Amino acid sequence: PDIQSLPDERKIPIDKVGVKGLRYPISVKDRQKGLQHTVGLFDLFVNLPHDFKGAHMSRFIEVLNEFRGEISMEKFREILEKIKSKLNAKSAHMNVEFPYFIEKNAPITGTPGLMSYTCFMRGALADRFDLIVGVEVPVTTVCPCSKEISEYGAHNQRGIVRVQLRFRKLFWIEEIIEVVESSVSSEIYSLLKRPDEKFVTEKAYENPMFVEDVVRLALSRLREKNNFPWYKIEAENFESIHNHSAYASIEKDFSPE
Amino acid sequence: PDIQSLPDERKIPIDKVGVKGLRYPISVKDRQKGLQHTVGLFDLFVNLPHDFKGAHMSRFIEVLNEFRGEISMEKFREILEKIKSKLNAKSAHMNVEFPYFIEKNAPITGTPGLMSYTCFMRGALADRFDLIVGVEVPVTTVCPCSKEISEYGAHNQRGIVRVQLRFRKLFWIEEIIEVVESSVSSEIYSLLKRPDEKFVTEKAYENPMFVEDVVRLALSRLREKNNFPWYKIEAENFESIHNHSAYASIEKDFSPE
Amino acid sequence: PDIQSLPDERKIPIDKVGVKGLRYPISVKDRQKGLQHTVGLFDLFVNLPHDFKGAHMSRFIEVLNEFRGEISMEKFREILEKIKSKLNAKSAHMNVEFPYFIEKNAPITGTPGLMSYTCFMRGALADRFDLIVGVEVPVTTVCPCSKEISEYGAHNQRGIVRVQLRFRKLFWIEEIIEVVESSVSSEIYSLLKRPDEKFVTEKAYENPMFVEDVVRLALSRLREKNNFPWYKIEAENFESIHNHSAYASIEKDFSPE
Amino acid sequence: PDIQSLPDERKIPIDKVGVKGLRYPISVKDRQKGLQHTVGLFDLFVNLPHDFKGAHMSRFIEVLNEFRGEISMEKFREILEKIKSKLNAKSAHMNVEFPYFIEKNAPITGTPGLMSYTCFMRGALADRFDLIVGVEVPVTTVCPCSKEISEYGAHNQRGIVRVQLRFRKLFWIEEIIEVVESSVSSEIYSLLKRPDEKFVTEKAYENPMFVEDVVRLALSRLREKNNFPWYKIEAENFESIHNHSAYASIEKDFSPE
Repeated sequence: PDIQSLPDERKIPIDKVGVKGLRYPISVKDRQKGLQHTVGLFDLFVNLPHDFKGAHMSRFIEVLNEFRGEISMEKFREILEKIKSKLNAKSAHMNVEFPYFIEKNAPITGTPGLMSYTCFMRGALADRFDLIVGVEVPVTTVCPCSKEISEYGAHNQRGIVRVQLRFRKLFWIEEIIEVVESSVSSEIYSLLKRPDEKFVTEKAYENPMFVEDVVRLALSRLREKNNFPWYKIEAENFESIHNHSAYASIEKDFSPE
Repeated sequence: PDIQSLPDERKIPIDKVGVKGLRYPISVKDRQKGLQHTVGLFDLFVNLPHDFKGAHMSRFIEVLNEFRGEISMEKFREILEKIKSKLNAKSAHMNVEFPYFIEKNAPITGTPGLMSYTCFMRGALADRFDLIVGVEVPVTTVCPCSKEISEYGAHNQRGIVRVQLRFRKLFWIEEIIEVVESSVSSEIYSLLKRPDEKFVTEKAYENPMFVEDVVRLALSRLREKNNFPWYKIEAENFESIHNHSAYASIEKDFSPE
Repeated sequence: PDIQSLPDERKIPIDKVGVKGLRYPISVKDRQKGLQHTVGLFDLFVNLPHDFKGAHMSRFIEVLNEFRGEISMEKFREILEKIKSKLNAKSAHMNVEFPYFIEKNAPITGTPGLMSYTCFMRGALADRFDLIVGVEVPVTTVCPCSKEISEYGAHNQRGIVRVQLRFRKLFWIEEIIEVVESSVSSEIYSLLKRPDEKFVTEKAYENPMFVEDVVRLALSRLREKNNFPWYKIEAENFESIHNHSAYASIEKDFSPE
Repeated sequence: PDIQSLPDERKIPIDKVGVKGLRYPISVKDRQKGLQHTVGLFDLFVNLPHDFKGAHMSRFIEVLNEFRGEISMEKFREILEKIKSKLNAKSAHMNVEFPYFIEKNAPITGTPGLMSYTCFMRGALADRFDLIVGVEVPVTTVCPCSKEISEYGAHNQRGIVRVQLRFRKLFWIEEIIEVVESSVSSEIYSLLKRPDEKFVTEKAYENPMFVEDVVRLALSRLREKNNFPWYKIEAENFESIHNHSAYASIEKDFSPE
């Protein structure tokens, strides 16, 4: 007997059943180079009706094997449809997280370097299709209060800005990163020569920002793109003068009911 | 000038502003011993109206200093009220996570041992007070399919069951742990002598359960307590035959609208 | 003035100075497919003589940029030489860790699946060149004691076997993985159909092994290869009946003095 | 038959066998308050001779249960002796890591706050007794190069200084923390009011330091204590202008051969 297909007598449907924490090599679209190889971490789930005992977990892996090599906003719906049909489910979910690399030149010398950003996509397909795309951008922030009250210097630190979006039309993750990097004291680079370091230091000092400022500025700039009916924006500073983080978040739903 | 109190011209209110990832020694209520010393990891936030530039982060720490030594379901509202008033906010949030220790005797020899469970509480106070209490319970699960199809043996593994609850009247976290530990193939111990290990092995083999079974059984037993208007129950198996997890989750809201 | 090149008056040489935790896309040699794309996490260090104030950190990134796209046991020495010369150092160090993927067919049905293994290399070049290569292999272990004392069943769990080696001639990481996977109760797969699951369950039950057995068996099999003058072998079981791990390790130096 | 006590025919002795990753509540000595409650993470190992198949893992937990409530430099040897005798071993090892809390007043206003430091002890007892004590101190560092080349401002960040020591006579972990906190651009606090923030900002700006400076200064100050025959000092900056860390380390053995 196929145990998973037996009826369950408790009459309780399950929201999500599946596999979690699966590492898999992927290729994703890249605005500069067309395609980029990286490594994804996947969760794949379906719903389970009240009258089935279990899901056939191996089928999730089979679907992933089929699509190996291509994960993108465009493909997401197709993969979820495949999961739904292969597991006879009413709803399917897929989350994937991966490092994404962008070549970025140092601001003065133009020396090339490679920046790494953590990206993620979280899709669900039931009657409707839903996809959230996100990215974590490492940044520098200079504290406005510290600058204001001190005769010289100002504490600053590395922070992370995490943006999650629902969207109307396809976009490049690079666009979101650009918005975030223009909403902080200074963007970050992997390689800076001395003239670059001078530039970055002075620019950051001229643009002191709280985490509160960062989420507000990023939100107002993302709104201008007129493409995102839902946002969640979080900024976290790994405070240089404390052993904890400063944090701010805004979640906004502009979608019509 | 107190920069944080300056008006912000962008007219964007912020949902949560505060401190994150703060480690702090706490004492929590303990059904066996009255009080237990442990270590918490805290997040503390307030909302920020559109016309204020920043929150006064140091005040969160001041509130925590005041209440040092006592974190409990009963105290949560009082702490949140203090945060609200001290930061002139309309809403306040506090999350805390901590290891909680329970003395548990081995099932046959009765040898005492200490089990560690990760607990958490997430509270919010705006017009209404909301508190979610959660616990992660490590367990053993034996795979029903593997048992059924194999001539001998059955793959089994450590898993984690994560329960989150809203509640009507105060309860002991120990009660939730008991429900979970009776909803799996076998509960886990820190110290087992040979007769105990025999008991646990055979008991688990007699009670094969999928993650699907675990969340269903835990849910139906928690419902019998008639105290929890909202649940989220997740089970994750660190599969012994795979390099990823099997996962199931149910979220249920029985609260009246 | 170039501050880093100033003399330091404290007369204290530094063992390692450099960059840590740098994520970078790489390609590594692959026995099946020739080349494999993955993502590395790098540390790069040099020594610093007592009379220099600091190292030029940006130069590490420049060297990495030059070699982008190819990390291998063969290349390691060349990269370290480049670092040494570019930073005018007497010794150079590079550590890299990356997920490595191998296609593996299920044991009975032959269904293909992709397994992920964490690999790492740690190289140093001073007067001599030293390179340690390592891999973490997820496995299944069945407890011999539990099997012996129980009427039926036996607790088993996922474990990790971590092997580190010094070597005489180049080898494939796949060879090490094969040795480890033949030294445990059963190897692990990403995709198993029902006949495969039956096979794996029964095979594991027939081969009960403690962590002690695993490190001993792996060591004796690796010795037969006659290629490894130094080993460190660790086995860690995420015990299914406890909330802690069982652990064993052996370190052996067979190199002539 | 007691399987663990059976002979093993492979004739391979094992360096370390035991339990790993065990969470346990402890109390440790505290210079301010006498005793402090916190939570430890333990590894406990013994050697295993070539002619024994396995170690009796439950006995480690029994020893820990016996000593529950008191972990200190003084007690370490006694616990290791107990493990050795209880497991009939030639060598015993215990590692423990725990957060340690110290009350620290803000530098100008004197407002009290609680700082958390990660401490660890690693002991081994064979013919000789060996104990390494360590602590991780979060700090602020201002970059000397950035300050020198910029018209205003200087990038700074949170860093971690990790000190490990062998010692001749007992000492307070607080002494080590004081040395480290006086060897960086500025120490860190959990609670700073505005005058404190001004002080800390200006003090840090006046004391720019590379990771190289930090390890050298900390080493030279620790040497003055004349109590530590062996040191390892590491400094890691979570660079505010990069997405990777700057790192320096020194290891020194002044013990007579």
